[in-house]
Amino acid sequence: MSIAIKDAKIPGRSGRFDILLDGGKIDRISGKEDGDEVIQADGKYLLPGFVNTHTHAAMSLFRGYADDMPLQQWLEDHIWPLESKLTKEDVYWGTKLACLEMIKTGTVAFNDMYFFMESAADAVEEMGMKAVLSYGFIDLGDEEKRKAEIKKTKKFVDYVASSELIKPALGPHAIYTVSEEGLRWCAEFSHKRELPVHLHLAETEDEIKEFKRQNTGYDHITEYLDEVGLLSNNLLAAHCVWLDEEDIVNLSDKGVVVSHNPVSNMKLGVGKPMDYGSMYSAGVRVTLGTDGCASNNNLDMLETAKIAALQQKISGDPTLLSAEDGYSMITEIGARALKTGGGSITEGMAADIILLDKGIKGVPGHNPVSDLIYSLQGSDVTHVFINGSMVMKDRYVRDEDEIVREATARAMNLVKGV
Amino acid sequence: MSIAIKDAKIPGRSGRFDILLDGGKIDRISGKEDGDEVIQADGKYLLPGFVNTHTHAAMSLFRGYADDMPLQQWLEDHIWPLESKLTKEDVYWGTKLACLEMIKTGTVAFNDMYFFMESAADAVEEMGMKAVLSYGFIDLGDEEKRKAEIKKTKKFVDYVASSELIKPALGPHAIYTVSEEGLRWCAEFSHKRELPVHLHLAETEDEIKEFKRQNTGYDHITEYLDEVGLLSNNLLAAHCVWLDEEDIVNLSDKGVVVSHNPVSNMKLGVGKPMDYGSMYSAGVRVTLGTDGCASNNNLDMLETAKIAALQQKISGDPTLLSAEDGYSMITEIGARALKTGGGSITEGMAADIILLDKGIKGVPGHNPVSDLIYSLQGSDVTHVFINGSMVMKDRYVRDEDEIVREATARAMNLVKGV
Repeated sequence: MSIAIKDAKIPGRSGRFDILLDGGKIDRISGKEDGDEVIQADGKYLLPGFVNTHTHAAMSLFRGYADDMPLQQWLEDHIWPLESKLTKEDVYWGTKLACLEMIKTGTVAFNDMYFFMESAADAVEEMGMKAVLSYGFIDLGDEEKRKAEIKKTKKFVDYVASSELIKPALGPHAIYTVSEEGLRWCAEFSHKRELPVHLHLAETEDEIKEFKRQNTGYDHITEYLDEVGLLSNNLLAAHCVWLDEEDIVNLSDKGVVVSHNPVSNMKLGVGKPMDYGSMYSAGVRVTLGTDGCASNNNLDMLETAKIAALQQKISGDPTLLSAEDGYSMITEIGARALKTGGGSITEGMAADIILLDKGIKGVPGHNPVSDLIYSLQGSDVTHVFINGSMVMKDRYVRDEDEIVREATARAMNLVKGV
Repeated sequence: MSIAIKDAKIPGRSGRFDILLDGGKIDRISGKEDGDEVIQADGKYLLPGFVNTHTHAAMSLFRGYADDMPLQQWLEDHIWPLESKLTKEDVYWGTKLACLEMIKTGTVAFNDMYFFMESAADAVEEMGMKAVLSYGFIDLGDEEKRKAEIKKTKKFVDYVASSELIKPALGPHAIYTVSEEGLRWCAEFSHKRELPVHLHLAETEDEIKEFKRQNTGYDHITEYLDEVGLLSNNLLAAHCVWLDEEDIVNLSDKGVVVSHNPVSNMKLGVGKPMDYGSMYSAGVRVTLGTDGCASNNNLDMLETAKIAALQQKISGDPTLLSAEDGYSMITEIGARALKTGGGSITEGMAADIILLDKGIKGVPGHNPVSDLIYSLQGSDVTHVFINGSMVMKDRYVRDEDEIVREATARAMNLVKGV
């Protein structure tokens, strides 16, 4: 079924456009033909949907449960006790809740790592989103646990093999939670099956200090990643706050994608802004992520882009991470990183696009890209199309009420008696 | 006319409440009687409206006109050339646009400093908001200019003398733009007429360096403020980023109110986070402001509170500026600072209140105050009452379309040929 979107403005281009979506692609721009369905944009902004390159979707169940405390206390006293009680049904409904929020705020694709990933995959498929999903592989140096994690990882990869919307990835959780053998297995399996790898890297200073204490042979954590076979253009590394200049050059040389998570980093107090300036100069591909809702506490990519820009500027250079940079990071660069096939308003690209009503916060409208990043918010999104299917129309998403009801009930049940 | 709001949730209290607004006040809480008009809240959050303690409302006309550049270039090449062309009609429509955005995002009262303030006052009155307004007094050390500024200030104070919604304030722009004589006149006039004072203070490191170069007799900028008679509980000082520990003690001793503007500070690259930790420990009254839309670029107080919290935590202490702190700053502390008569949901307080639909971003709802500050946004506000009058109902504000049309036309005309 084809959809014609009439009379839309495209940020950065002048005039108004009619766009035909057909066969999952942007078929024509400014062809005047009608589609099977016609959406009157009436001057709304039409742009690529947003791409969130690091989250733990099901953690939306924990939103607001624990805030404003040190990272270890947050994890040990609050998050881990809840996670130990999670069932696959919780993950299913938590992921649905996250997908609902992402769609409502204009996100079309995301990169996720968590547990019970078959249930997460079911939820994503049903919501019609694109995702790269990985089972969070944690062996803590234990061989038995490693074998079990390998089995779970393989099972999940097979489970989503035939999906059009979902791509499996390897999810070694972090260098401090996965043994060298575990990391090597992930690297080899990734190579053999041509799968991307999703890893937490250098989120805190403690991670780097502890790595150096335990691995005295390495001056830089990225040398270790290279040694175990993970440092490649298949790798997406989340956080990367505590990398040094040489690490950054290594990321650039190997084509690693960075997922910067400014809100989560600040909220958990990781200690300093990520060094975007050096990454930009070195040509590293930097994308943006929200992290899970327990440390953000929403999934709004426009808010994330604004805060990313503000975080860079605080130290005194207001030219760092411009509105245009933020816009590229959450659209084109993110889409390329996750290989969604979308990310720009170009004929032949995947029709992963959104309409956005600039409302009052976009008035007077001197610069739509500036308005998008610095003033508008996810709630200004009105329509979302993924692979040419309309998953949100006039701010309405199918089954909203059921998702809210079920997710709320499961969340309240989880915290009972913790 | 009385209004009954039925079946509302109040963050921090359990159960649901019926609230009667009458005579501009919160008349009863949980009286079951109906009012002349009944609003079914259906479980929406009811809370005090937000208070924005530092902005330049009419600068909404410049939103998105110049971003991502050093402060001096931004001012000299972009903002000042536009401001030199401003007419009173521009300020009228720019202020209306700002009021419209503030109402839409739940703000009931604000503190403003700009030019053509009679026109700003007309706009605020017509929109039904509360405001403390000050004419921006700038003499640049010139006696003739000072006399003219005194005249303009007196004229404006008289103009709004009979207003119920607007209070006049003195607006000495900053220590670096107003002579000692000008500052002393403001202090004396403020004392004589019992008017608050609104001042920019210590926004940049250069301001402090230049002050010390020119005033070698003072070790601290607040000693100079005290000497000219301005350091009192009548003073609201915006920014205060580059104050030292002794300055902070002085603010506390004299009961000065600080307006912290985290988004503007970061966007303009003032160089470091404001020292909220020391201010909090010293007992300084810290409120939140957005600054003008040219350096933010919106007027959303929930976004401002989230970013204030994140800014404090970045250096490594996630306990600084909690959700509860942020919530108090934009409600109770702000309302007391501007003496609005509102700021809490208590019988007898001014009925400056809002209803807010938690939508998807407030699910599951473990902690409504956390959800408000960290997840929800101004766009989630559905109803706004100021002195018991309903200025927004179901997200609709009177004359929206006219304001957008007129403000856009004026903004586009201003930038033409600059």
